[in-house]
Amino acid sequence: MKVEVITTGTELLLGEILNTNFTYLAQELNARGFDVLYQTTVGDNPERLEDALKIAAARADIVITSGGLGPTRGDITKELVAKFCGAELYMNLEVWEHIHTLLSKRNICIAANNDKQAMVPSGAVVLRNEVGTAPGLVLEHDSTMFVMLPGPPFELKHVCEKELFPFFEQRFPQNGIIKSHTLKLYGIGESGVAELLDDLILQQSNPTIALYARHGEILVRLTAKAAAEEEADRMIAAMQEKVEAIVGTYVYGYDNDTLPEVLGKELLERQMTIAFAESCTGGLASSLMTDVPGSSEYLKGSVVSYTNEIKRDVIHVNKTILDKKGAVSEEVALEMARGVRELIGADFAASITGLAGPGGGTRKKPVGLVYIAVADENGEECRKFNFSGARSQVKHRAAMAAIGLALERVKKCSLNREDLEEISNDHDTDR
Amino acid sequence: MKVEVITTGTELLLGEILNTNFTYLAQELNARGFDVLYQTTVGDNPERLEDALKIAAARADIVITSGGLGPTRGDITKELVAKFCGAELYMNLEVWEHIHTLLSKRNICIAANNDKQAMVPSGAVVLRNEVGTAPGLVLEHDSTMFVMLPGPPFELKHVCEKELFPFFEQRFPQNGIIKSHTLKLYGIGESGVAELLDDLILQQSNPTIALYARHGEILVRLTAKAAAEEEADRMIAAMQEKVEAIVGTYVYGYDNDTLPEVLGKELLERQMTIAFAESCTGGLASSLMTDVPGSSEYLKGSVVSYTNEIKRDVIHVNKTILDKKGAVSEEVALEMARGVRELIGADFAASITGLAGPGGGTRKKPVGLVYIAVADENGEECRKFNFSGARSQVKHRAAMAAIGLALERVKKCSLNREDLEEISNDHDTDR
Repeated sequence: MKVEVITTGTELLLGEILNTNFTYLAQELNARGFDVLYQTTVGDNPERLEDALKIAAARADIVITSGGLGPTRGDITKELVAKFCGAELYMNLEVWEHIHTLLSKRNICIAANNDKQAMVPSGAVVLRNEVGTAPGLVLEHDSTMFVMLPGPPFELKHVCEKELFPFFEQRFPQNGIIKSHTLKLYGIGESGVAELLDDLILQQSNPTIALYARHGEILVRLTAKAAAEEEADRMIAAMQEKVEAIVGTYVYGYDNDTLPEVLGKELLERQMTIAFAESCTGGLASSLMTDVPGSSEYLKGSVVSYTNEIKRDVIHVNKTILDKKGAVSEEVALEMARGVRELIGADFAASITGLAGPGGGTRKKPVGLVYIAVADENGEECRKFNFSGARSQVKHRAAMAAIGLALERVKKCSLNREDLEEISNDHDTDR
Repeated sequence: MKVEVITTGTELLLGEILNTNFTYLAQELNARGFDVLYQTTVGDNPERLEDALKIAAARADIVITSGGLGPTRGDITKELVAKFCGAELYMNLEVWEHIHTLLSKRNICIAANNDKQAMVPSGAVVLRNEVGTAPGLVLEHDSTMFVMLPGPPFELKHVCEKELFPFFEQRFPQNGIIKSHTLKLYGIGESGVAELLDDLILQQSNPTIALYARHGEILVRLTAKAAAEEEADRMIAAMQEKVEAIVGTYVYGYDNDTLPEVLGKELLERQMTIAFAESCTGGLASSLMTDVPGSSEYLKGSVVSYTNEIKRDVIHVNKTILDKKGAVSEEVALEMARGVRELIGADFAASITGLAGPGGGTRKKPVGLVYIAVADENGEECRKFNFSGARSQVKHRAAMAAIGLALERVKKCSLNREDLEEISNDHDTDR
């Protein structure tokens, strides 16, 4: 099945927005066995869009448009596709009702031009859009299937997932499926993983194994092509076993798991709490931790000790050490972790001190040098990192490294029942 | 001048990368008075690319390709464009020398297929590529100008800036230029700005006035079309004056200015310092402040008081108030600002307490309810916000609102010399 995607909108041609709709559609359609061969962008201009539809119909089996389904005069996609297919528009009462219900829920006055959105080409399949007023539409003409999708990315995704992809599955059962599963690794570099998995990657063609480095994490993506989902799942599970036999110790999660989420889960399971003392990351590690809903269950609090004075006066870093070793040092990192753990009264603490740049680096202490320490009731440990990149990248990598190091330390803490009870009592009495 | 951009590459059609090359070209070309009317993506397939070239040549004056100039067999753009134009390829010695110099500098062995990159269509203008091996090329045929650019974004930008755009300026002097200038507003919503500027927007066609809402800020973009840069600058300056006469009190900066940067500048000018007490933002406000290089000059430190216990024990929020009013309340916000200002010993303090969601909301205190307070030596003030959006959006909007409120308060603090001296002494003795 050859697919062409036509994205419409002047804002695309002006370079005001990136074409994320196409990237999404390309990923999803390729994964479902469609061949996405062409993508065209045109503005909200009737002649040019009409020409683009003609060209697409001549070279593709499925033509997918995004945008131009809104209530304004500039929204012309539906009208032009209907014209091309020789279909009349009629008022679809179900769509009309949905629009009216949605707008009144949002306390928006219904304008006359909203009725335009309830007009549907005769013979079209309506793809319900629960999160917006413009439904998706499927209209077939000669040997071409036209699929019209709303332009706002959130609505487009919603209509695809809830309506279009299930429709495709029924309509093109022979297509087979491609399924992916991602292993997320922490604590090892891309070249390290590549070396370890080299033989396996070369041997394999289905599932394929692909490596990606992102924000200091390594992603290992397994992609299987099969006739049915169960078969793809089996193939992926078998390959995952082989991969984890080699790099399993670095795997912290899968697919949409994030490092802050996994650390949170491990803390929750142990009913333990954490605190951060942040210098060069300026609060980013804590902010990443609190991106996870429910994180107040385990993140008690943090201190951004951005100046020496705060390191000394608030989290009680020893002044002599601070003067002698400098703020960016192993010794100060250890003191910070100890100090914030005590101040906040948390089970674990992690500290970050380093040089995010661009200024302030010296030969002995270059930009990107970061010390990260973790502390718990058994003591402290510190690790030294040299991160590359711009200020914001160094901040992000350092924050993730602190969360990663904390995860390592927390995992070492056993999870047996007695411990849990002890910890639980501890919570009741001490805090 | 009608322009079509053809981006090539299977990775685009698989959705593996976003088409940033097109967005860049669209922005730059529109700004130079070209009409970018079409964009097409095809894979590395000779027939499909040839067809795309034919279609483009028939509807555009300038056809710009990106990608397919590399040394491999899959790189076919140059060969196909030359074939389309009936031009022979010849070995260009200057390009050959450049490739050999560059590769030997990088200690890369020169492969036989690198010579392919030195082949140039006869009659083509060579656009030198100092940062890569594939030069850009301009080839004219009938009434169409073909511009071939390398695919790697960094190389494409380099060739455009250093070679293509100067070439265009000479070749199309009549094109004129488009220039934009953005006013950044804070403390007012999009509909508020729209209402205030309504008359002005309707009256104006050159410069145009466009409004955008982004991350809780409002952008007012003035875009002028003129024959020369100086004229555009004059037109924009005149319009800016009119706009600022109406909404000037909300303008905090221009173009690439950010709210944290501007707050930092105001604090630096006054030689004053700030601290944050963050609850629902979990450190994000401090992190945004420390994204600015040199922020350690004015951000002394912050406390993420994520639990009631930390609010009470570390920044000394009154227990009775906390119990009676709840953590998300005006009273607690005020206590937090006061408390953290004292703990950190800063001139200003801002506090944030609210419900980021998705859980935890009640009818009286819904998700998105956030109290933000600021404190200085003259006292405190608090404002109540109701933010919409997902957890991360509420966090971001709340953090920006705190920075905005702090900026308002800091600006009220006069900047006369006596004050500066007093503050300066204060710094020396107290801290």
